[in-house]
Amino acid sequence: MAASTMAAPTAELPAADHLETPMATSRTPIRAILAATDALAGERVVVGGWVRAGRVQCGGTMAFLTVNDGSCHASLQLVVEAAWVAHPPLARLATTGTSVLVSGVLRVPPGKSKERIELGVEAVIEAGEVDDPAAYPLPKTRQLKLDHLRDFLHLRPRNDTIAAVARMRSELTFATHSFFRELGFLCVHTPIITTNDCEGAGEMFQVTTLFSQAQKADRELKLKLAAHHEHDADDDEEGTVSFESDFFRRQAFLTVSGQLQAEAYACALSGVYTFGPTFRAENSHTSRHLAEFWMVEPEIAFANLQDIMNYAESYVQYLCKWLLEHCMEDMEFMAKTHDKSAIERLELVSSTPFERVSYTKAVEILMGSAGSKKFQTKVEWGIDLASEHERYLTEVIFKKPVIVYNYPRGIKAFYMRLNDDQKTVAAMDVLVPKVGELIGGSQREERFDILKQRILDAGLPMESYEFYLDLRRYGSVKHSGFGLGLERMLLFATGLDNIRDVIPFPRYPGKADL
Amino acid sequence: MAASTMAAPTAELPAADHLETPMATSRTPIRAILAATDALAGERVVVGGWVRAGRVQCGGTMAFLTVNDGSCHASLQLVVEAAWVAHPPLARLATTGTSVLVSGVLRVPPGKSKERIELGVEAVIEAGEVDDPAAYPLPKTRQLKLDHLRDFLHLRPRNDTIAAVARMRSELTFATHSFFRELGFLCVHTPIITTNDCEGAGEMFQVTTLFSQAQKADRELKLKLAAHHEHDADDDEEGTVSFESDFFRRQAFLTVSGQLQAEAYACALSGVYTFGPTFRAENSHTSRHLAEFWMVEPEIAFANLQDIMNYAESYVQYLCKWLLEHCMEDMEFMAKTHDKSAIERLELVSSTPFERVSYTKAVEILMGSAGSKKFQTKVEWGIDLASEHERYLTEVIFKKPVIVYNYPRGIKAFYMRLNDDQKTVAAMDVLVPKVGELIGGSQREERFDILKQRILDAGLPMESYEFYLDLRRYGSVKHSGFGLGLERMLLFATGLDNIRDVIPFPRYPGKADL
Repeated sequence: MAASTMAAPTAELPAADHLETPMATSRTPIRAILAATDALAGERVVVGGWVRAGRVQCGGTMAFLTVNDGSCHASLQLVVEAAWVAHPPLARLATTGTSVLVSGVLRVPPGKSKERIELGVEAVIEAGEVDDPAAYPLPKTRQLKLDHLRDFLHLRPRNDTIAAVARMRSELTFATHSFFRELGFLCVHTPIITTNDCEGAGEMFQVTTLFSQAQKADRELKLKLAAHHEHDADDDEEGTVSFESDFFRRQAFLTVSGQLQAEAYACALSGVYTFGPTFRAENSHTSRHLAEFWMVEPEIAFANLQDIMNYAESYVQYLCKWLLEHCMEDMEFMAKTHDKSAIERLELVSSTPFERVSYTKAVEILMGSAGSKKFQTKVEWGIDLASEHERYLTEVIFKKPVIVYNYPRGIKAFYMRLNDDQKTVAAMDVLVPKVGELIGGSQREERFDILKQRILDAGLPMESYEFYLDLRRYGSVKHSGFGLGLERMLLFATGLDNIRDVIPFPRYPGKADL
Repeated sequence: MAASTMAAPTAELPAADHLETPMATSRTPIRAILAATDALAGERVVVGGWVRAGRVQCGGTMAFLTVNDGSCHASLQLVVEAAWVAHPPLARLATTGTSVLVSGVLRVPPGKSKERIELGVEAVIEAGEVDDPAAYPLPKTRQLKLDHLRDFLHLRPRNDTIAAVARMRSELTFATHSFFRELGFLCVHTPIITTNDCEGAGEMFQVTTLFSQAQKADRELKLKLAAHHEHDADDDEEGTVSFESDFFRRQAFLTVSGQLQAEAYACALSGVYTFGPTFRAENSHTSRHLAEFWMVEPEIAFANLQDIMNYAESYVQYLCKWLLEHCMEDMEFMAKTHDKSAIERLELVSSTPFERVSYTKAVEILMGSAGSKKFQTKVEWGIDLASEHERYLTEVIFKKPVIVYNYPRGIKAFYMRLNDDQKTVAAMDVLVPKVGELIGGSQREERFDILKQRILDAGLPMESYEFYLDLRRYGSVKHSGFGLGLERMLLFATGLDNIRDVIPFPRYPGKADL
């Protein structure tokens, strides 16, 4: 199995018809090898991956390489004898970061070894060297801090923690699709570019081609701004341009939520969910905010507030059980290195019915705790609960997930269904230990007159919401939905503290690397 | 089962603690009822949905409602007797578009009927009337054209065709995740906002907060534009602003492809794929272009060109088989109403090995066909194959899917691996009947020096690609990937002609409704 087997001679064809023999299909993932342990001893396999650590021993005649291919947390030990390998020299091969594609025979290591199986390499099919080992940003010699790794977004998946997060994130994605499909819900791709502002208040990114148009025309961009009076601006007057000449002929934004559009689909197809990126142009530099993050938003016709509490509870429990079932190796690593209680927390949440308590009751409890617990923000009926209050409820008072429902209308969005008391809306938040709010949802206002009044009260431009009112004009139904932030779920599951470490390419003020 | 059961009295709790009994969990999807057919006769069920058509008969004492809930193409017939229902009047209930949540008993219809099962309604739990039936945009009285429906994006999922597309799109999404997960590939969420231009040529949307900043400051936006010389602009000089004051402190764009970032993950974790929205600010008004569309992009370490041909072929066949297995009712509807050959096409593609032909050979074949077929664009070695050529190859010459590989370097992107002939690159396109190119992919250039030269030759700013070169500096591997446009796949599968009908909320020049 030398490199030459990669290029089967096809002399009779012109050069442009040449194709190498496939290489990927013959490769065995390390996960499959380690899962089978010594059952595979004696098998000939092809393995590819990156050297995490290597050492040359026995007077330079043997190299031991710890190789990881990302298929699982654990690495496989490769034993390379100089006699078998012409190039590159063993010392180069043993450099951290080097890539190798090798063939060899699996075997139980001789003598005492912590490995249960290793690979005796017989041929190095391909090797990708590390150009300048001293410059490699992920040397094995030091424990790299996560904030340092954020400067190397393109290389950090070679780090154990980031790799574990990647595997867990992928599994949570699949679990999400599985959960909702089992319920018969349809995955709907709601738009990313929108002319609609779901919350009516968000800090939104604008999407435009005006700059590149001006660049092409090689001129200064001058735009007269007058909110909601775009027609005041004029293409000709003093060389200014208006949004009329923009790609969508008006202002367009990045979505802050797919909810309103998902409602349109729910009001035709019953159960739907959207799972995609959402955006906030908030100038937040905290460890809990991103400018771009992924949301899961189910929307369900013929469902009321209590229904979505039930769905939300089942969904979170499903995710926890899924991780315990499919990601135990990574969970154990996270528990060992980052958060001792990570596994216990998943087990608790997956097996404990969630407490359900009204906002009014929650405020009473928090006010009653004033003696024993000082909050930074004083608790009184009408405030938006802060993270400190949410975590106190779930971690100290109830010691399990809590669903708080029926919030004051004044602190919630216009589309949430007004309760009969006229003071509260049919909203609910799911609070979990470690992160506080994991899910926010509500029953939607399905009554035309009340919804219209609430849009007016909120001072929103009615014409943007005509489509939304149409859903109430033509066969309105009670319906409800919620949103789960995937990154919040990952913070909860991994025990990591910074949201920038649970998304592959974090975006925040001043940062959109790659 | 009257409306009052929805509101269980909870007199001992304050109003804000009030919760209705859940309603969604007791509802039976129509799909489940029709799948079981008469096996469910005699069962009491709750059904919710929208009236597609209704008629009042027997002197106004009975209404027959054809109700659809989106769970499947077929509707259930509801029989409502006036004696059972106080409100609304039967004539209102029978109006197209009305929503109903009813309980009743399933039964085999008496006498001759095309229905195998119907629901004898005993209580109307909820009904959402159509405010002004004459204004309802989807009346039953006329066959609505798809282009007309595009003006009602929020209501068109109530149309049979759009609903069928939604179900097929959802299934293709799940099939995609299933396929790659079975291969052990990780789903990676590559960024939407990027400072990088993958193709180096794309028409990109810019993402900015400069307009809203200027709006808040209530001033005109004046921006001096000078490509790649952002420091020339100055915040103070003449009141102009620079991208330094933008959210990301430089120009940021919407991604045109997640490939480059997916490569970073593949060069650490081996097999990955990204599935998300991508954007092109092309001023195209055709039936084949969108400004926002969804792409599936696997990226595989230790894989060469032939490997990804194999993966691409398996993936497309998997999708076809999945649709035949899970969406047959919708496929039959599409075949009946839009494209007779839709099912045959899926069967052909799912069961036939794909033809593989080099670009050079394909050009020879096309040139040899010049006698029998006139092309709008003349064929000669070096041209980018147009849709007419692609379709001719797959539909007329081979009558099956074709993979064309080894394209001239001059018409392909800088990152594609240069072949030994120096004239072609290791690229491949999968062509299928009806749409032509369905997949485009390549082996990536893994050799540092050659890649660097190609970046220079393409005139791209080197600093943007340092991360990409790093992947070749530190343990480079042969790797390859491809991209499939989900909407193309849907055009292929459904037989529909306009791409705007296979995405829920199409975006194109001048249009970003909702």
